[in-house]
Amino acid sequence: MEYQEIYRLTKEWAYEAGEILREAVSQEITVEYKTSAADLVTEKDKEIEAFFANKINETFPHHFLLGEEGVASNQADYDPHNEIVWLVDPIDGTTNFVHNKRNFCISVGVFDRGQPIVGVVYDPMADQLFHTLKGNGVFIDDEFIKPSTMAPTSEQALISMNHLWLAPNEYLHEQPLQKMATDIRGFRCLGSAALELANVAVGRLDGAIFIGLGPWDFGAAYVLLKEQGIHITTVDGEQIDVFHPSSVLTAKKELHHSIRSNYIRTKK
Amino acid sequence: MEYQEIYRLTKEWAYEAGEILREAVSQEITVEYKTSAADLVTEKDKEIEAFFANKINETFPHHFLLGEEGVASNQADYDPHNEIVWLVDPIDGTTNFVHNKRNFCISVGVFDRGQPIVGVVYDPMADQLFHTLKGNGVFIDDEFIKPSTMAPTSEQALISMNHLWLAPNEYLHEQPLQKMATDIRGFRCLGSAALELANVAVGRLDGAIFIGLGPWDFGAAYVLLKEQGIHITTVDGEQIDVFHPSSVLTAKKELHHSIRSNYIRTKK
Repeated sequence: MEYQEIYRLTKEWAYEAGEILREAVSQEITVEYKTSAADLVTEKDKEIEAFFANKINETFPHHFLLGEEGVASNQADYDPHNEIVWLVDPIDGTTNFVHNKRNFCISVGVFDRGQPIVGVVYDPMADQLFHTLKGNGVFIDDEFIKPSTMAPTSEQALISMNHLWLAPNEYLHEQPLQKMATDIRGFRCLGSAALELANVAVGRLDGAIFIGLGPWDFGAAYVLLKEQGIHITTVDGEQIDVFHPSSVLTAKKELHHSIRSNYIRTKK
Repeated sequence: MEYQEIYRLTKEWAYEAGEILREAVSQEITVEYKTSAADLVTEKDKEIEAFFANKINETFPHHFLLGEEGVASNQADYDPHNEIVWLVDPIDGTTNFVHNKRNFCISVGVFDRGQPIVGVVYDPMADQLFHTLKGNGVFIDDEFIKPSTMAPTSEQALISMNHLWLAPNEYLHEQPLQKMATDIRGFRCLGSAALELANVAVGRLDGAIFIGLGPWDFGAAYVLLKEQGIHITTVDGEQIDVFHPSSVLTAKKELHHSIRSNYIRTKK
């Protein structure tokens, strides 16, 4: 019962938050820089996270929130593996929100004692809501998205990945990934991890590779991908701890195996 | 007078073609492979190009069409520099059309004796029409897009580029571009050159780098970019011959100069 109510309200709040963001893109957006010129945050990130923090606190006072902007970080110490936890990214793809005016989303994943329960990713500019309640299937708006039975090979695959991992970097050897760029059908990079991962869950992309995501970035998509039976692990193929920052490699079983064995070499 | 009529009809036909494509994405799409598994063409590419060929032939029998699928390639020999020529890409981003079900567009550019006249890029899934009639400004749907007065530095720039040019390739030295990946705010790759170039014209992206585009890929966006006063040249900084395949480097003057001098090294 409570899961159904969480599901219903997550979707409702995502739509409300999306409305705020749609209005905001038509206006001047005030930007702050966190760690570098590439790390933006806006007043809207904070406003939307506070919106969710208030809603969750009012409706489910015993639930916890792990959000990108840390609005609720002054909560008492808790063990997320023993609680219901909301992973909220108020604006995933803030750079796109500011500059591109599209290709950003609101991402909300709910876990009960570590188990995925609800995943909602809302793209307000496309007005598309990706959502699932565990065991009930994945939907875009009202359309049920049947898990695809196709098993794409690398050669046929469209994979989401940031261009950075093709340049020398401290996480992944770039040469195998450069070979991947010429082997596969194509890489894509929209600039919103949650949206790109949601696209994998609905079969619009065949896979994705991310380094250094926060729980709020992948939380909702993790629930969507698990519901579709699509593999999601760290780039080393290990289980993701959803309450800690993590790398992400997602694709169907065969493609996941092929990417990991042929193209991923992590630097320890 | 004729230019106004061309402008009006180009927009009308783009909407009609877009309606056909919107319906098509909800159905099974038949795919052929041209030169490789990454080079797709569908019956819809051919159908939409034939649609434009027929419309142009009926309405402007003295105009010429240069289209990706070569539907009208049996036209008599002509010198495009002495004619009115339509550069038509019926589906720019065919791979996205088939797999991603979005981020593709219809691209139509019209040139009179080599001079840009009309540029129309229609994204049917977002239902957004980017358009200009030379001297009348650039619009998205009914919204006039004022040329931005901002002059982004490399550090602030969002640039569209295929991941391929960060891997060893025969056109561009990859190392300076790899450095660019870490210097700039971010690379993006949607998978539709016409749409990405149109995004530069309206300020959603700050620049773009493409290799080996056909006139149909960049024709419409060329008109949009010229109208906004944004530089568009080959990657070597030379003037583009709009009737032949070309590389494309586009950005505002200062950023264009900075990209070309710091990051582009062509292989001759």
